[in-house]
Amino acid sequence: MSKFIKLVEVSPRDGLQNEAKRVPTAIKIEFINLLSQTGLSVIEATSFVSPRWIPQLADGEAVFRGIDKIHSVAYPVLVPNRMGFDRAVAAGATEVSVFTTPSEQFSQHNTHCSVEESVQRIAEITSAAKKNKIRVRGYLSSVLGCPYQGKISPQSVAKLAEILLTLGCYEISLGDTIGIGTPKQVKYLIEVVAKKIPRRKIAVHFHDTYGQALTNIYVALEQGIRVIDSSVAGIGGCPYAKGASGNVASEEVLYLLNGLGYKTGVDLEKLILAGKFISDCLQQKPRSKVLGSVKQ
Amino acid sequence: MSKFIKLVEVSPRDGLQNEAKRVPTAIKIEFINLLSQTGLSVIEATSFVSPRWIPQLADGEAVFRGIDKIHSVAYPVLVPNRMGFDRAVAAGATEVSVFTTPSEQFSQHNTHCSVEESVQRIAEITSAAKKNKIRVRGYLSSVLGCPYQGKISPQSVAKLAEILLTLGCYEISLGDTIGIGTPKQVKYLIEVVAKKIPRRKIAVHFHDTYGQALTNIYVALEQGIRVIDSSVAGIGGCPYAKGASGNVASEEVLYLLNGLGYKTGVDLEKLILAGKFISDCLQQKPRSKVLGSVKQ
Repeated sequence: MSKFIKLVEVSPRDGLQNEAKRVPTAIKIEFINLLSQTGLSVIEATSFVSPRWIPQLADGEAVFRGIDKIHSVAYPVLVPNRMGFDRAVAAGATEVSVFTTPSEQFSQHNTHCSVEESVQRIAEITSAAKKNKIRVRGYLSSVLGCPYQGKISPQSVAKLAEILLTLGCYEISLGDTIGIGTPKQVKYLIEVVAKKIPRRKIAVHFHDTYGQALTNIYVALEQGIRVIDSSVAGIGGCPYAKGASGNVASEEVLYLLNGLGYKTGVDLEKLILAGKFISDCLQQKPRSKVLGSVKQ
Repeated sequence: MSKFIKLVEVSPRDGLQNEAKRVPTAIKIEFINLLSQTGLSVIEATSFVSPRWIPQLADGEAVFRGIDKIHSVAYPVLVPNRMGFDRAVAAGATEVSVFTTPSEQFSQHNTHCSVEESVQRIAEITSAAKKNKIRVRGYLSSVLGCPYQGKISPQSVAKLAEILLTLGCYEISLGDTIGIGTPKQVKYLIEVVAKKIPRRKIAVHFHDTYGQALTNIYVALEQGIRVIDSSVAGIGGCPYAKGASGNVASEEVLYLLNGLGYKTGVDLEKLILAGKFISDCLQQKPRSKVLGSVKQ
């Protein structure tokens, strides 16, 4: 089993879109440039979603155009539909992320369409992406529980993961959007999904709402998963649980991986500095315990 | 393998002794009384250490005498030496905790004596305890790394655990005092210690300095450990890392255990209320993410 783990840094997108405080464009650019120096190979830079839905990322174009792009780093941007995809391509994006969910109710609440319509939108994007040689990463939200409909069947997650892969996504990130999962569920979910798509194409995206994210990641590693989404300083939040913590903190993930002897290519000290930078900008105490513990 | 996990609640002692803010005696009593209603079977109530060393717990006698003791709950108190033991017995304690460490330098810094002298003090206590029919629980500090001397050999931990058991301790709690450990180390440590003492007599006591505690607990569970020390609302701290988080939060541990299908007898809602009570008294945001996420 490979000892290399790919970390996907989602803070500039999934982190900042869930922070109440607005961050100026120039700060976002400086932040992403700091992340680019850490050794990360994937940094989700922003989204091209309507500012009506996500005002925090209304400056997606300016951010994407403004960052210093490192050759060895991929900078996917999240796109909700063909229009967002076209804007992303026009801004120079070479990789996009798309999202759907196995939860009908989550889909209706979050994207105002059915799961089927959502998959149709993704098909339009992947079709256009092929012509433009754009790589597409797929997200599935609320895979371990939904804030609206409760339980989610692992089989429905597996089915959707297979569809997204067939449509052309190169990797499927399984998101526990409300951070409700525990190891037993995670293990079973991965076993079920891995019957439909190869483990190397599965990523995990865990929120730390109940403090379980790192343990769930450990279980995913045991299950052969080698791609982990995380967010420096744990920035972000859970829009369905006010005051709850956000994405799992990249520093805590990296500390774990270093201890387990995995290779990531990422420098913990530099990651800590980037996390400190954005926490200061957001005027909040760092949510990463690693960050809170080191001398500054 | 047993599906019952014994939770040892250490917040009134290990939690409060590391909090800068002093808590009035009456509040401590109310807090322990709340904990007694949660279904916990062990609550470490206070310590009988010189107030010169731990002023936060100078009111140990008053606290211990003041609490409503539930028949099904054990209330050990920490004692550093024979004098502390005698005070504990005089106050009515039927169970005490003792501590030492495999780290010579930690022993010198923390208790101003060598490890050997420290073991001698424990022998005096266990000897007196036998005559008084007092149960003794043993702590080993800094088992996964020491703030002064760095690495600690698992073999030295195992040797000391065996000595404490032979002296009469009924259980040995392995403490990662600076919260530096990761799963690989935890797994190896338990394997080594379990060669010397039975797994059912090993407890784990993890601090969350780098956010690794819950994952380390998960690994300990996989290794057959069935006793876990924790602290509601994650209260406490690491005296060697300023601003660092404290003990692993009981609520996060219980959330994990419930998800894994273990039985504990502890009511999560009542635990959350006790954690909220003490966080409010300490005027701090709860460090347990479970506590931060539920409706209040």
